Amino acid sequence: MNIRFLTAGESHGKGNIVILEGIPAHLEISTDDINIELARRQKGYGRGGRMLIEKDQVEILSGVRKGLTLGSPITLFIENKDYDNWEKIMAPEPSREQVGHPLQRPRPGHADLPGGIKYNHRDLRNVLERASARETTARVAAGAVVKKMLKVFGISVQSHVTQLGSVCVPLKENIIYRNLNQLADQSPVRMLEKNSEKNAIKLIDKAKSKGDTLGGIFEVVIQGAPMGLGSHVQWDRKLDGRLAQAIMSMQAIKGIEIGHGFENATHFGSQVHDEIAYQRKKGFFHLSNNAGGIEGGISNGEPIIVRVAKKPISTLRKPLRSIDIETKKEIKAAYERSDTCALPAASIIGEAICSWVIAEAFLEKMSGDFMNEIKERHLLYLKHLRSY
Amino acid sequence: MNIRFLTAGESHGKGNIVILEGIPAHLEISTDDINIELARRQKGYGRGGRMLIEKDQVEILSGVRKGLTLGSPITLFIENKDYDNWEKIMAPEPSREQVGHPLQRPRPGHADLPGGIKYNHRDLRNVLERASARETTARVAAGAVVKKMLKVFGISVQSHVTQLGSVCVPLKENIIYRNLNQLADQSPVRMLEKNSEKNAIKLIDKAKSKGDTLGGIFEVVIQGAPMGLGSHVQWDRKLDGRLAQAIMSMQAIKGIEIGHGFENATHFGSQVHDEIAYQRKKGFFHLSNNAGGIEGGISNGEPIIVRVAKKPISTLRKPLRSIDIETKKEIKAAYERSDTCALPAASIIGEAICSWVIAEAFLEKMSGDFMNEIKERHLLYLKHLRSY
Amino acid sequence: MNIRFLTAGESHGKGNIVILEGIPAHLEISTDDINIELARRQKGYGRGGRMLIEKDQVEILSGVRKGLTLGSPITLFIENKDYDNWEKIMAPEPSREQVGHPLQRPRPGHADLPGGIKYNHRDLRNVLERASARETTARVAAGAVVKKMLKVFGISVQSHVTQLGSVCVPLKENIIYRNLNQLADQSPVRMLEKNSEKNAIKLIDKAKSKGDTLGGIFEVVIQGAPMGLGSHVQWDRKLDGRLAQAIMSMQAIKGIEIGHGFENATHFGSQVHDEIAYQRKKGFFHLSNNAGGIEGGISNGEPIIVRVAKKPISTLRKPLRSIDIETKKEIKAAYERSDTCALPAASIIGEAICSWVIAEAFLEKMSGDFMNEIKERHLLYLKHLRSY
Amino acid sequence: MNIRFLTAGESHGKGNIVILEGIPAHLEISTDDINIELARRQKGYGRGGRMLIEKDQVEILSGVRKGLTLGSPITLFIENKDYDNWEKIMAPEPSREQVGHPLQRPRPGHADLPGGIKYNHRDLRNVLERASARETTARVAAGAVVKKMLKVFGISVQSHVTQLGSVCVPLKENIIYRNLNQLADQSPVRMLEKNSEKNAIKLIDKAKSKGDTLGGIFEVVIQGAPMGLGSHVQWDRKLDGRLAQAIMSMQAIKGIEIGHGFENATHFGSQVHDEIAYQRKKGFFHLSNNAGGIEGGISNGEPIIVRVAKKPISTLRKPLRSIDIETKKEIKAAYERSDTCALPAASIIGEAICSWVIAEAFLEKMSGDFMNEIKERHLLYLKHLRSY
Repeated sequence: MNIRFLTAGESHGKGNIVILEGIPAHLEISTDDINIELARRQKGYGRGGRMLIEKDQVEILSGVRKGLTLGSPITLFIENKDYDNWEKIMAPEPSREQVGHPLQRPRPGHADLPGGIKYNHRDLRNVLERASARETTARVAAGAVVKKMLKVFGISVQSHVTQLGSVCVPLKENIIYRNLNQLADQSPVRMLEKNSEKNAIKLIDKAKSKGDTLGGIFEVVIQGAPMGLGSHVQWDRKLDGRLAQAIMSMQAIKGIEIGHGFENATHFGSQVHDEIAYQRKKGFFHLSNNAGGIEGGISNGEPIIVRVAKKPISTLRKPLRSIDIETKKEIKAAYERSDTCALPAASIIGEAICSWVIAEAFLEKMSGDFMNEIKERHLLYLKHLRSY
Repeated sequence: MNIRFLTAGESHGKGNIVILEGIPAHLEISTDDINIELARRQKGYGRGGRMLIEKDQVEILSGVRKGLTLGSPITLFIENKDYDNWEKIMAPEPSREQVGHPLQRPRPGHADLPGGIKYNHRDLRNVLERASARETTARVAAGAVVKKMLKVFGISVQSHVTQLGSVCVPLKENIIYRNLNQLADQSPVRMLEKNSEKNAIKLIDKAKSKGDTLGGIFEVVIQGAPMGLGSHVQWDRKLDGRLAQAIMSMQAIKGIEIGHGFENATHFGSQVHDEIAYQRKKGFFHLSNNAGGIEGGISNGEPIIVRVAKKPISTLRKPLRSIDIETKKEIKAAYERSDTCALPAASIIGEAICSWVIAEAFLEKMSGDFMNEIKERHLLYLKHLRSY
Repeated sequence: MNIRFLTAGESHGKGNIVILEGIPAHLEISTDDINIELARRQKGYGRGGRMLIEKDQVEILSGVRKGLTLGSPITLFIENKDYDNWEKIMAPEPSREQVGHPLQRPRPGHADLPGGIKYNHRDLRNVLERASARETTARVAAGAVVKKMLKVFGISVQSHVTQLGSVCVPLKENIIYRNLNQLADQSPVRMLEKNSEKNAIKLIDKAKSKGDTLGGIFEVVIQGAPMGLGSHVQWDRKLDGRLAQAIMSMQAIKGIEIGHGFENATHFGSQVHDEIAYQRKKGFFHLSNNAGGIEGGISNGEPIIVRVAKKPISTLRKPLRSIDIETKKEIKAAYERSDTCALPAASIIGEAICSWVIAEAFLEKMSGDFMNEIKERHLLYLKHLRSY
Repeated sequence: MNIRFLTAGESHGKGNIVILEGIPAHLEISTDDINIELARRQKGYGRGGRMLIEKDQVEILSGVRKGLTLGSPITLFIENKDYDNWEKIMAPEPSREQVGHPLQRPRPGHADLPGGIKYNHRDLRNVLERASARETTARVAAGAVVKKMLKVFGISVQSHVTQLGSVCVPLKENIIYRNLNQLADQSPVRMLEKNSEKNAIKLIDKAKSKGDTLGGIFEVVIQGAPMGLGSHVQWDRKLDGRLAQAIMSMQAIKGIEIGHGFENATHFGSQVHDEIAYQRKKGFFHLSNNAGGIEGGISNGEPIIVRVAKKPISTLRKPLRSIDIETKKEIKAAYERSDTCALPAASIIGEAICSWVIAEAFLEKMSGDFMNEIKERHLLYLKHLRSY
């Protein structure tokens, strides 16, 4: 049975929660391991005021004892430190008293309108509180746990920003950095090249001054995943499909490609497919990685490259036209405190989400209920890879 | 409980099979309805010889009686007419006799190598027979059934090719054609513009003459889907995520975007988000459709635009370098009869796959065990949409 | 997509948690609604000391605002009030310090041994903390939410104890009490007959004095469920199968029957099957209810009767023979504070679990994202039932 | 990802189909392996005429090549040899011609009425064709495949009838027969004791002469399953719950217990729980098996005993009272050719179903994509069991 998770929590409610189910026993995990990733998610040039209020800290409510997972479900809770200010508005207790105005001006680009109609909410806060990207704190926390597990098996999940608005990082083809995150984390926009970084920061400043917002493209790079994760035998076992769903389910994501999927579509087959080679020590490998590490829905041993397009943030300080859902009059959309650009953060969230999918596929292949069992099987599998 | 399907079948085995589970009762369906889609899948300039051998015909094995669905699982079987020639090689009966050579030269870009290693097959035919795009006959057949159902509710799923190799169709922004398929089906490359069509055909001829292959980009356009399909409340309920998984699970697909996801990522928020308007008769709508019909993981009432990048076909007549899995010597990859370009067919498959996801989300929202029950609920929901 | 839940939490950890996913919007719910069920779970003659320490109180962490569900995931947290005393032993923080002895004497009847071996735990507390019936607080809390929803649609889920150890309540055939819980809750053993109650209490006293334990049989009665929940079309859609899994997944449950399944198996068909009748106002109904309300995996409109066998509690004060997992010597099993008999509580838990399954099947049939939508569809369906 | 299956097919349609998904590669399987189980399902004293018409024979449509599984989905097709006689009535082609009378007299005890109302069928044949126990041919075929796999790992799944109507086999406590099926298959009622067999046959003759029907109780015995299948950590991972759902989803099943669950509920804890012992060679084991091989939702290394109550067949030659769904008049229920008693067959079906659940849990624990990989991990796990 697969590992599973469910997240819960509203943006200005008590906090965000995630239950992780099926994580093997005896994985070393601490709040520090998780807080580091939560902190990475809060950084980045272009964030708004909230990031200063919240210093996200996880509390482990279940599933871990003395720093080791038990095999039982793990609950992670990230308190919303701002809740005190919102309690009157967000409290679960029944109350007839209307506190504050109901939000009735749907913001273009958000779930406000379709979510409001679907659930018949007349106060659109009832939608946006859950649709908010604050939910991703829970997914980052969950990702931190499985990232720790993947590390034990030599699998790293890192990321960087390759384009921010119109500013595109000029990248050397297919260079894989062992220490990608170390480099990217040094940049306030998580770019690997200084000139682009400078231009990106300028662009953010410009957008901010206009009350406008920005998105862009980031890349998640998974190194060390063995050949054979996912499967070609049924549509929903394919690794690329599962990555695509998970990534596209992130707030504000509108596109995903494995490798340079869209660009490669414009070339001839002879230019695109990765020729196969062999070395005794290494086993089979490829002479290039245009496939982005996945062929036929299965990892092929090369780094898995997931490229992701994030639209500009939908909440504009200089708001767009909308309609008041009560009066049906044209009006400006609501403004809810927000960022100018959250692309660097998005790349961290992307790491967490990819970590989950890879961990799931890895545990499907290895199975095992405690870490040593999985390690033993992993070694056997590596032996199989070399001896095939 | 969701609708579900499982496909089965090998490319040169007895045939391809799909079981559809959860389809409501009293949907009118005939083999003709399905054969029409199967035939559309077999067309397109650039196909190889097999398309001439196989004129795919579905047989309904269960779930339909006198032209109406029963509510019980529907089994569709598409015989491989070529099986007689392959019986000795592919038959399920135990046999020690080796017929033909085992396939031991993995083709770059295919599941051959990672699949062979994962399942420890020494004859790579045991992988490619299932990894083959022939499996999509079953998905097209399944899609034809739900497409028929969607039509009852005024939802159409159509497609066209927007780029083939380097040939890009110049498109007017956001024009939605009611009769898109009628137009696209008239073109051998499913393009809407004559000059591009001509260039695309030339390019295919050139690729063919070189033993090379081509891919490209197609667009699936879903019209008539009501606001409110999918949900923002949990990652795996989001409609865009589910479309992304389903589409990315297609053979040879390496990228997906909702609307112009990648391009929009490069613009300012004020340029991208779709302003909201209202008319009494029509209810809420948007003044543009850059979101591609989905906001916050929920359909927003506008046409849903799914853009898909397909890599060039991996089987090249002029094969790439590979390694013999037995001798470990460098060798040319195997050649298995194949097409030069199957992009027009891919767009048809994409229709089928999107139809399934939309049908699933539609039935989640409406539920209902027989068509009249769903119709009644659909009308109530349309009323809700107008009166919100 | 179905409603889902995941529970988490250890018996002496910080608390028990459950996330409920897919609950419709605008259901009125308060902590009181849930606490009432939690309190019912803590009652019953034969409980040990813990029930005095813990007065379970739920905290709603997400998904509810001003007394109404939002449609987003609901998180319920039931703090373990005893945690302060256990913090040193159970805290999640890494610690090399061994506090207390590791538990290494597996208790017969518990998950201790198979769970210890499966997860390779050397301190069996790492198993029992999660295997404990304390986990059912979370399921009772989840059940309270959907029970509230079912009530809106005229569906009640009640229970009573029909046998405790060897004491069997003499029951009139197929009498369905509208106010079953009101009657049963008045009895400390939840029996409907005074003489049996007296004998049961005596038996519990006897068991307690010997350091022994008791189980028995209880019955959950679901009234008001409309015909047509579940389905015959696929094995995992059958309502009885889903009830069976859910109930059998309760701690200490070893048997389940729908109606008097085991007894009816010994009779002739002509004695067992429920003849069908019709009245204009009422529609179709049955002249008896030996089927326990389910035919062909589908609710048939009669009360659904689920009978459940609970084994005696596995933790005996006068412990059984076991083996020390370190020394491999014969030894007495560990004793962990426990009850003599928890059958009355089990019947409450059974209500919660059946409520969930019925709510799931009900929402599958009706679907709907907010209460008024479901109400409208429910009325349409009742009309269909009468007019069939 | 778990193994999965979907069945399809109507009782008098073209045949019954099952797709098995996730079966590992390199399992030896032949039509003979499956036909043997299909033949066992067709035997038993008390069957009606159909068993003489149909000699069920499986055809493998996919997933197997030269006697070995490929790892890809396996499709099994069991033709209904009687279809020629039913084609006019059951054919999928659209037809306005009414052939034969619509079935409008629902049979008590069947899905006819609730299924008819749920799906709004006016010809109840549209329900009964799928609700029929003929569907179990597909499940028996699926079970035969995984049974073959379990055998490789020393796990056997056998069964016998312990009670037929009022005739109860006097059984020595907890005797496990290595060759249980060999013994049971020799008896036309699958009983292990000659006197009971004689009485059972007499009872069937009596029921038949009266136009009545019989059910009873059978027991499935699983030997060789290692400790550690299933898990205590989440409700839906528990092995007993999963067995309960699968078994209860069988046609006509109304009760299930693990071991003597209902009887044990009446005893003291000290009489019921199985004390733990240890031998160096054998590892841990239990001195009795009242738990029926499962503790805390996990297999405990002892034989798993599943006891199942089957109601008498619902189709009586001397029919019960019912209501014509068109006229609403009281009428006798329809009679569809049927058996007097199918309990021996049910026990074979029970074997198949339990085999599936055990195989699923086994593959969750071991995982692995091909048989040798699983064998290697199985050996490692057995070593772990002995060294714990």
